[in-house]
Amino acid sequence: MQITEQWSCGEDNRTNMNSFFRDVQVKSMEQTVKHAEKYLGEICSLLASYTRKTAKLRDKADLLVAQLFDFSRTEDPEVQIGLRNLAEDLAMVQDYRQAQVERLETRVVSPLKAYGDVVKSKRADLKKFNTDLNRELKELQKVEKIRLRNPADRQSIAEVNAQKASNNAQRSIRQLEETITDFQRQKLEDIKRIFTDFITVEMLFHAKALEVYTRTYDNLETMNTQKDLEVQPMPMIQFLHMTALLLYLSNVHVVHIVILAKEVMFSPVSVFVCWLVGLSVRLHKNY
Amino acid sequence: MQITEQWSCGEDNRTNMNSFFRDVQVKSMEQTVKHAEKYLGEICSLLASYTRKTAKLRDKADLLVAQLFDFSRTEDPEVQIGLRNLAEDLAMVQDYRQAQVERLETRVVSPLKAYGDVVKSKRADLKKFNTDLNRELKELQKVEKIRLRNPADRQSIAEVNAQKASNNAQRSIRQLEETITDFQRQKLEDIKRIFTDFITVEMLFHAKALEVYTRTYDNLETMNTQKDLEVQPMPMIQFLHMTALLLYLSNVHVVHIVILAKEVMFSPVSVFVCWLVGLSVRLHKNY
Repeated sequence: MQITEQWSCGEDNRTNMNSFFRDVQVKSMEQTVKHAEKYLGEICSLLASYTRKTAKLRDKADLLVAQLFDFSRTEDPEVQIGLRNLAEDLAMVQDYRQAQVERLETRVVSPLKAYGDVVKSKRADLKKFNTDLNRELKELQKVEKIRLRNPADRQSIAEVNAQKASNNAQRSIRQLEETITDFQRQKLEDIKRIFTDFITVEMLFHAKALEVYTRTYDNLETMNTQKDLEVQPMPMIQFLHMTALLLYLSNVHVVHIVILAKEVMFSPVSVFVCWLVGLSVRLHKNY
Repeated sequence: MQITEQWSCGEDNRTNMNSFFRDVQVKSMEQTVKHAEKYLGEICSLLASYTRKTAKLRDKADLLVAQLFDFSRTEDPEVQIGLRNLAEDLAMVQDYRQAQVERLETRVVSPLKAYGDVVKSKRADLKKFNTDLNRELKELQKVEKIRLRNPADRQSIAEVNAQKASNNAQRSIRQLEETITDFQRQKLEDIKRIFTDFITVEMLFHAKALEVYTRTYDNLETMNTQKDLEVQPMPMIQFLHMTALLLYLSNVHVVHIVILAKEVMFSPVSVFVCWLVGLSVRLHKNY
């Protein structure tokens, strides 16, 4: 009798524990989906923000490129070429940054964003299976009660019902488990793939930037800023002004032109051309 | 007479041209300083903005690091370690980005900002020399007029004055030239140095980021996400709950515990510990 009572008590506890552990299990599954929703959602929005900030950095660097081009135009040949090369290289790095931004969007942010829908669908699955499970557990409790009241003629029917309800509950919990295990497996695989893609995209950009900047560094090193200071050829506009003036003041002696030209650091070739023009006009006037 | 007239006309033109070319020269010098002020000022503010945007990118990545650490805590050992390594590597890249930001500020933005004062001082120098030059050229014109009026007794005095005024003007224009040439030389050297520093700082960051991410990539590749799905050991909190429950329901048969434990995928060790605790309490109750 003591053994039967203990066994019966054990059976009762078993039902309670079944229910308890299933609750724990369902809670744990809900937690898995909730964590995925929370953390992957936040990581997604941070990576989207990171991508936007990268795009803003590219915009600023693009403005710098435009400014360097403008600046280069005001400088003499050697420095002009140096600054133009620098601007072109900076622009190339920004093209790579643009590729980085696009890749981050398509290969990192979009798949993470898609998780929002996956999580929603898993949450719906979880809810459905949980409802099924609760219904079946209630059924199980009902037939268990009938079986405990133990009327001889209903014993076998109750046991069949109990078995059926238990099987249904078992099936529901298995479906729940499979859904969550699939979700978890997919989630872990996706996390691995997404972060590997993130690292690949970043590495690609850093490698390309490093490649371009190595060349830029060498170009800057070879830029001879003193060369422009040694010879300062006359800009075309000043050359035209001077020619026009010399045509007007065409009886100026060549020596004075040379002295004046030396003072304003015009190149010897343009001074010679100016003098020739001046000379020809003077000759034309005299004869 | 014709020759004298031509010469005198030439002398007159020479004074005009001297004045004209000096104006052109002064204008050209003013242009040099103006361009330096305009372009270097704009490049400075763009590089400062680029540095700030880099700092913002670092801030976003720092938030991502924190989120990855939080997320890792909700995952099982293998993925937890993988995510923690990823977060640590990302944090390291942000440290390098911080160094990049600091270096850009001290080695690129600050020297460019200092140019504001250099340009101001050069502009003041230019103004002073230009004022001196104008005063001396007026003096020169005055003595030239006296000389042209040609009164015999004042001839020599006028010529001495003319020579003196001409020398002063010459000295002023030389000072102006030297100031601007120095400024231009310094400017070009500084531009070369600043942009070389900019490229060096960028290269350093890209190289370090590439180094760190190469390791991160390998770590991610070796992360076995399936391992966590195969064995799901019970978290400590669930283990404590289960122990407490088993102490309460201590007459549950070991077979049921094993079945239930299997259902909720607890690790065999924790199930065994739970059962031992339960058994000892049951024995204590019975005797």
